[in-house]
Amino acid sequence: MCGPQRGAVMGGLIYEGLAKNIEEAEALAASGEITFDPCHMHDAVGPMAGVVTFSMPVWILENKTFGNRAYCTINEGLGKVLRFGAFDNEVLTRLRWMEQELYPVLKEAMAIKGEIDVKVLVSKLLQMGDEGHNRNEAGTSLLIRELVPAIMNCDKPLAQRVAAFNFVNGNNHTFLNISMPAMKCTLDPIFDIPYCTVVATMSRNGTDFGIRIAGLGKNRWFAAEAEMVKGLYFPGYSEEDAARDMGDSCITETAGIGGFCMAAAPAIVQFVGGVVSDSIHYSTRMYEITVGEGRSYKIPALDFRGSPTGIDLRKVIETGIRPVINTGIAHKNPGVGQVGAGIVYPPEDCFKQALAACAEAWA
Amino acid sequence: MCGPQRGAVMGGLIYEGLAKNIEEAEALAASGEITFDPCHMHDAVGPMAGVVTFSMPVWILENKTFGNRAYCTINEGLGKVLRFGAFDNEVLTRLRWMEQELYPVLKEAMAIKGEIDVKVLVSKLLQMGDEGHNRNEAGTSLLIRELVPAIMNCDKPLAQRVAAFNFVNGNNHTFLNISMPAMKCTLDPIFDIPYCTVVATMSRNGTDFGIRIAGLGKNRWFAAEAEMVKGLYFPGYSEEDAARDMGDSCITETAGIGGFCMAAAPAIVQFVGGVVSDSIHYSTRMYEITVGEGRSYKIPALDFRGSPTGIDLRKVIETGIRPVINTGIAHKNPGVGQVGAGIVYPPEDCFKQALAACAEAWA
Repeated sequence: MCGPQRGAVMGGLIYEGLAKNIEEAEALAASGEITFDPCHMHDAVGPMAGVVTFSMPVWILENKTFGNRAYCTINEGLGKVLRFGAFDNEVLTRLRWMEQELYPVLKEAMAIKGEIDVKVLVSKLLQMGDEGHNRNEAGTSLLIRELVPAIMNCDKPLAQRVAAFNFVNGNNHTFLNISMPAMKCTLDPIFDIPYCTVVATMSRNGTDFGIRIAGLGKNRWFAAEAEMVKGLYFPGYSEEDAARDMGDSCITETAGIGGFCMAAAPAIVQFVGGVVSDSIHYSTRMYEITVGEGRSYKIPALDFRGSPTGIDLRKVIETGIRPVINTGIAHKNPGVGQVGAGIVYPPEDCFKQALAACAEAWA
Repeated sequence: MCGPQRGAVMGGLIYEGLAKNIEEAEALAASGEITFDPCHMHDAVGPMAGVVTFSMPVWILENKTFGNRAYCTINEGLGKVLRFGAFDNEVLTRLRWMEQELYPVLKEAMAIKGEIDVKVLVSKLLQMGDEGHNRNEAGTSLLIRELVPAIMNCDKPLAQRVAAFNFVNGNNHTFLNISMPAMKCTLDPIFDIPYCTVVATMSRNGTDFGIRIAGLGKNRWFAAEAEMVKGLYFPGYSEEDAARDMGDSCITETAGIGGFCMAAAPAIVQFVGGVVSDSIHYSTRMYEITVGEGRSYKIPALDFRGSPTGIDLRKVIETGIRPVINTGIAHKNPGVGQVGAGIVYPPEDCFKQALAACAEAWA
């Protein structure tokens, strides 16, 4: 495991009361008593370190057409947070507050609201300068507009409801932890379509980058070493401090938003680096490796062309164009947190292995 | 007065209890007993018919540098509304509800909140696909995020607070009635700068289009017949149904947002007509007739170039390029409402008259 992943695992063990301190947590994590498994093997996704432990509340997303669900924790905000490998008291206190104070408000509010049509929100946020991965200001705003009447109407004490609102409102990445499972439950039904070479999952853990192919099913991963992210670093940090590419958040690109819709979110270049024409270029190149265009998700700057959707493994191999991902950068050591954001690609070897496996399976 | 202006005046008289019905209102309006004056002569602005009567609550905007204020009513929403000349019971009932139910909540919430930095909101909305005149989804979203904790904390009954929230939230043009007075109180301090040929006001009333020039002071208007709007009509309507260009909302363009920032809001072409490259073209042409570029208001699609700001009368005359305005279109008859939206320009004669007046004044 990479440093931030280890930090998040240790933090998760202390948060759950399974370890009293970092030394106990490290020993327990290494003992073989703890089972680690990718979120994707449990209908879940998690940004960056992606640690989900048994007490953490989750958003529940449902694909209304196919009935499958996907889950994701509530976003902790920026700065020192578990998903970037930080695990000090500030991080753990926040996680406990989220479980004990925030979640009850959101749970009751969602019970009052019933459900929120996330597909509509994603359609709108693409018209509002977000791309649903590293820019989520519009998505978070639109979510708030859906939730507020229910938060106002729920029974929890006023101070608790106001604190819950302020937490959600104070973190523009709140919507990331909804766009991710939304994209996962959109994609998951393509598994087991016979002979389908569309990429159903892309994910990374700071060590390896893994992909799954629709026609080869949920149990076959094709992995290679994750790359370093090229981007902008926070003051005082450089690429020497960075962990390799990590997290499940590239499920957004897999489904055709995120980096694939950077042309819809030109302001993102101020966060990940580059100029506005780069954002157009990133999106237009993705049409060369995808099988379709979004019918609901449109990119204004491309004259409302549908987003490039459905990465075809064969097109990636044929063109040599790899899927573009925009992403946060974690410090390589446990306990530090985010140090920047940038652009990264899956290693070519994932696709080569997958193509060989398709050829072998369907020969 | 044009039809929708007459409709709004009659509706305003009935709303204030000065007339019992439309016949009484028409007779009273024509009697000479009522004084009509432009909003701009009272530190106010109003979209479309722009009728402000003495019981209507207003947003109060303040220019923190110069201390001047500007006022605007609360936006009624789309459909049959007073500002488009509709005056039936639905319209009047809504206006009374806004005065008696909505306003007390917003007043108390604003007292709790203190003040909202509208300059920051306008900077952000330009990064979020709005231009602050005909597209206000981001602006309204950001306003809501500022107001909600105060609405949650105020003393009014829950049902009243929820209804107030739902009204504001249900109308994406809520923010228009804030961006307009914000732009007015930004511009007003330029009046009486010696020899300044910057356009300080543009306004129209469905009959005439009037401009004021900074160096010539607040009391000199240069007016000519308002033009017809070229745009998209709602089903069942055409240019034959349209009133001429009307309202104070082009104060947004006068200050460098609205039509001047269409490149920031490509989705607006779906509302006013044209393709996305038109939105870029509209904005870039405006640099040829303006004196500066926004330091806070940036256009992402133009690589974050500052918005074209400060229309110079002399540049308009020299280049023959007129300021571009995007706008709603009212039905020409009273009582109907909005029939479309599109693009329009001030008549050239306003600028010719103004230039002659400058030459005469400063010879």
